[in-house]
Amino acid sequence: MRKSYSRVAALWLAVALGCAAPTPPPAAESTADPLPSWNDGTAKQSILDFVARVTDAGGPEFVPPAERIATFDNDGTLWPSHPMYTQLAFALDRVQEMAPQHPEWKTTEPFKAVLEGDMKTVAASGEKGLLELVMASHAGMSTADFEAIVTDWFATARHPRFKKPYTELAYQPMLELLEYLRANGFKTYIVSGGGVEFMRPMTEAVYGIPPEQVVGSTIKTTYEMQNGEPVLMREAELDFIDDKTGKPIGINTFIGRRPIAAFGNSDGDREMLEWTAAGGGASLMGLVFHDDGEREYAYGPASELPDTHVGAFSQALMDAATTSGWVVISMKKDWKRIFAFDE
Amino acid sequence: MRKSYSRVAALWLAVALGCAAPTPPPAAESTADPLPSWNDGTAKQSILDFVARVTDAGGPEFVPPAERIATFDNDGTLWPSHPMYTQLAFALDRVQEMAPQHPEWKTTEPFKAVLEGDMKTVAASGEKGLLELVMASHAGMSTADFEAIVTDWFATARHPRFKKPYTELAYQPMLELLEYLRANGFKTYIVSGGGVEFMRPMTEAVYGIPPEQVVGSTIKTTYEMQNGEPVLMREAELDFIDDKTGKPIGINTFIGRRPIAAFGNSDGDREMLEWTAAGGGASLMGLVFHDDGEREYAYGPASELPDTHVGAFSQALMDAATTSGWVVISMKKDWKRIFAFDE
Repeated sequence: MRKSYSRVAALWLAVALGCAAPTPPPAAESTADPLPSWNDGTAKQSILDFVARVTDAGGPEFVPPAERIATFDNDGTLWPSHPMYTQLAFALDRVQEMAPQHPEWKTTEPFKAVLEGDMKTVAASGEKGLLELVMASHAGMSTADFEAIVTDWFATARHPRFKKPYTELAYQPMLELLEYLRANGFKTYIVSGGGVEFMRPMTEAVYGIPPEQVVGSTIKTTYEMQNGEPVLMREAELDFIDDKTGKPIGINTFIGRRPIAAFGNSDGDREMLEWTAAGGGASLMGLVFHDDGEREYAYGPASELPDTHVGAFSQALMDAATTSGWVVISMKKDWKRIFAFDE
Repeated sequence: MRKSYSRVAALWLAVALGCAAPTPPPAAESTADPLPSWNDGTAKQSILDFVARVTDAGGPEFVPPAERIATFDNDGTLWPSHPMYTQLAFALDRVQEMAPQHPEWKTTEPFKAVLEGDMKTVAASGEKGLLELVMASHAGMSTADFEAIVTDWFATARHPRFKKPYTELAYQPMLELLEYLRANGFKTYIVSGGGVEFMRPMTEAVYGIPPEQVVGSTIKTTYEMQNGEPVLMREAELDFIDDKTGKPIGINTFIGRRPIAAFGNSDGDREMLEWTAAGGGASLMGLVFHDDGEREYAYGPASELPDTHVGAFSQALMDAATTSGWVVISMKKDWKRIFAFDE
């Protein structure tokens, strides 16, 4: 379990700060193009070629529709993970909101630092501190209450840089990719290190992905009768961390089929891509590379930012992508626009 | 964890013996009837009425297709669980097959008893013994190897009474119900105490339910590189027991939506039915009642068999069904035929 804690902390420790202003270049859309927000290039062509091959009923690489499983990481792959993971922003907001009921937080770290907006001390509280924040904000209520809290939060919270609801920050090229794959008989899944019950309230509306196609990290729940009504209570105990090796494990447990396409953006996605690549038939592995500090963020190899954040795209991952023929999707070069509102 | 062990043991301890011969009554099928193997009566009418109400687009109880989730227990609900759970039969066969590589089993219980066909001693070995059998037969190999072993076993194993492959023993009326629900926009799921990777290799062919719609018990898996290829290894450690309170928990974790219809046959399904009933809108809860010792088995209330087996339909469950308006499906009265080969 201790090992899992360090992984969850890694997931959450992305408290780097954003910078620079967005420049929205207009998108010249062709009516026939299923991926109008993608520039012509290797990435786009690899996707089109792959879909053509696996859907060619007479071809050697045909895959029956039932086996066309595509998995997508969420944070950094389908929407931004900077300046911090959306779920961490939620946890911090929740701590602020719950503070009146917790006077002791004024003098107890890491809550004190959160209430004072002292992100350095929050980050310095390490795994233990972050886990305390997560549990204080995510556990101790029923699943129904948590869903309502998350839904309310998504309706009101705004991204600090883009000043938009997080639910409007899905990457437009990835929305087109999801839709293109579904139009070609694929079943699209999210496989994220994020909490499954934090994502499910918004995935259908934002990505067209229903709750039953969301795989993520979980905390323990218990079944209880309260005034004659059954409830599932969220307990302050981690159950499963859907990151790194947890991703193929989660895919196998929840889906029971191996994907033929998988997309990620960080070292936490490497095993999911390896697992997908090892399926034996045609497969497509893609990595969203954040190299556009102007329109979004730049991190990982070739970044102007020191790579101190977690959820990193390491040089080792870039090397693995090159060696293995995984498609590196440059946000700067491959995407005409990043957000739907970039027009 | 200890509590979970007692639940898995309960699941597996059904080593009662079957009796009596099957009598196949011919089915008089109407072309328009979606449930031709069901006799007219309360059970059939309740199903037809429920489906009519939730699919009536203008009606007060309409449920959008995306929310039409129906969950089914497997053993005893979709196919027989007597004289023992199919998965236990598999475990016992595996122990026989693996015995040459385990000379120590000749003198070690409960393996010795299995090899000697002494089922009383196997049962007397209790939770600990049964867990040893499960782990010896289900763990220590990759998920791919386990799938191949299970697939081979289903191709050759025969039910001791019906002398047919287990995969031909799906209850015909339940197959019609699954198909009828799917034809009306429902997504059908298995939610079983059985091992998820034991069921997935056969659910599509037998029930038309794809692997990603199978929720069940799991053991831990680990992700490893073997000769440069990633594998998921099955470890001898329980992860999740999908029985009793585990069923709503598993439903919430895997599916993330509450069912509007749920079917079971034992005390292990009670919480799933309670959870379904508490959804707030229209819902249908059904219990398959094994009261047909001639064509299948009779157990639970009003049984001629002493109710010593586990996986029981207790009098308390029957009382809950009556109080709550759950549909009790009498195999004897409600089903024209039980198996597809009953003609």
